[in-house]
Amino acid sequence: MPELRKDPVTGRWVIISVERSRRPHDFVREPVVIHGGRICPFCPGHELKTPPEVLSFRDYGGADSPGWRVRVVPNKFPALRVEGDVDREAEGLYDKMTGIGAHEVIIEAPEHEATLAELPEKAVEEVFWAFRERVLDLRKDRRLRYVLIFKNHGEQAGASLEHAHSQIIALPVVPRRVQEEIDGAARYFTYRDRCVYCDIVKQELKDGRRVVLETEHFLVIEPYAPRFAFETWIVPRRHESHFENAESAVMRNLAWVVRTTLRKMDRVLERAAYNMVIHSSPVQDGPLEHYHWHIELFPRISKVAGFEWGTGFYINPTPPEEAAEYLREAGLP
Amino acid sequence: MPELRKDPVTGRWVIISVERSRRPHDFVREPVVIHGGRICPFCPGHELKTPPEVLSFRDYGGADSPGWRVRVVPNKFPALRVEGDVDREAEGLYDKMTGIGAHEVIIEAPEHEATLAELPEKAVEEVFWAFRERVLDLRKDRRLRYVLIFKNHGEQAGASLEHAHSQIIALPVVPRRVQEEIDGAARYFTYRDRCVYCDIVKQELKDGRRVVLETEHFLVIEPYAPRFAFETWIVPRRHESHFENAESAVMRNLAWVVRTTLRKMDRVLERAAYNMVIHSSPVQDGPLEHYHWHIELFPRISKVAGFEWGTGFYINPTPPEEAAEYLREAGLP
Repeated sequence: MPELRKDPVTGRWVIISVERSRRPHDFVREPVVIHGGRICPFCPGHELKTPPEVLSFRDYGGADSPGWRVRVVPNKFPALRVEGDVDREAEGLYDKMTGIGAHEVIIEAPEHEATLAELPEKAVEEVFWAFRERVLDLRKDRRLRYVLIFKNHGEQAGASLEHAHSQIIALPVVPRRVQEEIDGAARYFTYRDRCVYCDIVKQELKDGRRVVLETEHFLVIEPYAPRFAFETWIVPRRHESHFENAESAVMRNLAWVVRTTLRKMDRVLERAAYNMVIHSSPVQDGPLEHYHWHIELFPRISKVAGFEWGTGFYINPTPPEEAAEYLREAGLP
Repeated sequence: MPELRKDPVTGRWVIISVERSRRPHDFVREPVVIHGGRICPFCPGHELKTPPEVLSFRDYGGADSPGWRVRVVPNKFPALRVEGDVDREAEGLYDKMTGIGAHEVIIEAPEHEATLAELPEKAVEEVFWAFRERVLDLRKDRRLRYVLIFKNHGEQAGASLEHAHSQIIALPVVPRRVQEEIDGAARYFTYRDRCVYCDIVKQELKDGRRVVLETEHFLVIEPYAPRFAFETWIVPRRHESHFENAESAVMRNLAWVVRTTLRKMDRVLERAAYNMVIHSSPVQDGPLEHYHWHIELFPRISKVAGFEWGTGFYINPTPPEEAAEYLREAGLP
């Protein structure tokens, strides 16, 4: 019998389709293959092909020259621009505003062939430190209400350049889905006086069936009502609403956790394309009791069809308990 | 300067990216190609390869034999099942229920190579009559709250069989995104005492820049804040909350409108894959003053990336005013 499950934060219902249950090998997988960079603008020596860097961690050299380990630059074709005012205006019954914001690229390593999963732990840690530093800088601009950090790995996941990179988009509004998640968590808090994510951590640890791995600071789970097969969440065990406020020990542990999770996923899903998104609180807000930052990972192994777009209602052919088992047991290469 | 635009119903913000503006030829297009059906379960003569039909319009023959023009059958691998009770249960802090519902397939034509865009107008009309008849039948089951009608055309859009077909999923809950749309429309109604879609029809007719075509009963537009390039809405001009309550004259006109719109899209986007979804009111509700049924069409010409999944915030590289111009001017083959 198929089961309908409800995400306790957003209220989203998901069909867990047992009859159509699919294991890792049933998905058409197109492993992410890196072809090599003839004229890659992210490779060392090509620093002038990007806008001037806003941050780098370096072994040697000055700004916009080789010697960097991680480099952050504005997107050459930004979806939003920093210059100008937030101008809000009506157009008949419609509302619009100027596209103020920032759009930056974090180049994760100098090596063209590197992937976040395969970088040394220390290098992964630096990528996350770069994220943090950029958020702390961007939030000084009071016009910017939300900073979104995300990664598209592989063409199937929307990456247009293959050199390992993540992106940051800072927005003058809090996006709809983000607000919905925060509102859902707030409703839970009002009702129970507890953070829903803290409760999830407790229940999942006790239950164990959906746990992929646990460390001192993090719990990696397949969520109860996942939209996608092998959707995976990385949740800090201690309550903290803002990613950028995470303590140093947490940040160090995060690098190991992200790297290990990605390597397990590469192993089980044969290097499938994926999206990774950091869910955090609006940057101008103080600490929130009811919201808890975390990371959501989606391998892109099946097509999203009309049903999903039309309704926000998902059919997931792999129960999270089964996905967790595969990931838990995946030995590391 | 990029522009942020807000959808007046859902409150969703979209970035209309002018600097990255893309015309039809800038998209990587993979035309939907029909390879032909050796062992297609939807072809005439193979009626016993599907579960027994629940509806057919025929020239001759009895149930589950050739002679049909349109045929509706339960999905062989249904995401939901009709048998059983709606059983709601907690699992710690989580909520689940049994996957009660219906999942049917509408086979749109006997010819394997047919596409909805190329079928004769009369045949398209029959497909929509079949939708209507199925909704009227399914809503008799009071457990079913929402009936979703959608079509995935082409593999890129999630179709797993190439023989022209649509799907119906009847659900024991109203999906999140549907409820959000209805709530948004209700808020607008509370504030202005008018239906937001009726207002959109009026404003778009007066403005003209986003109009693709208009007929006596329908307006086809590129919406003001489209998520995707060439996203297209087909909106009835007269207020009606439920698709299944549309008058006969409206249904007849709809066939021409859908067919013409799809043909224009095929022409401009070189037969791209697409999803089509009918947005309608919950089937157990009486007529609603504030909600207005309509059809949303999305060609699948670009990949949805992490940003969109993370936030429900979309970057659209083709302003709807430009897309409308292409579609308006597209001569028909």
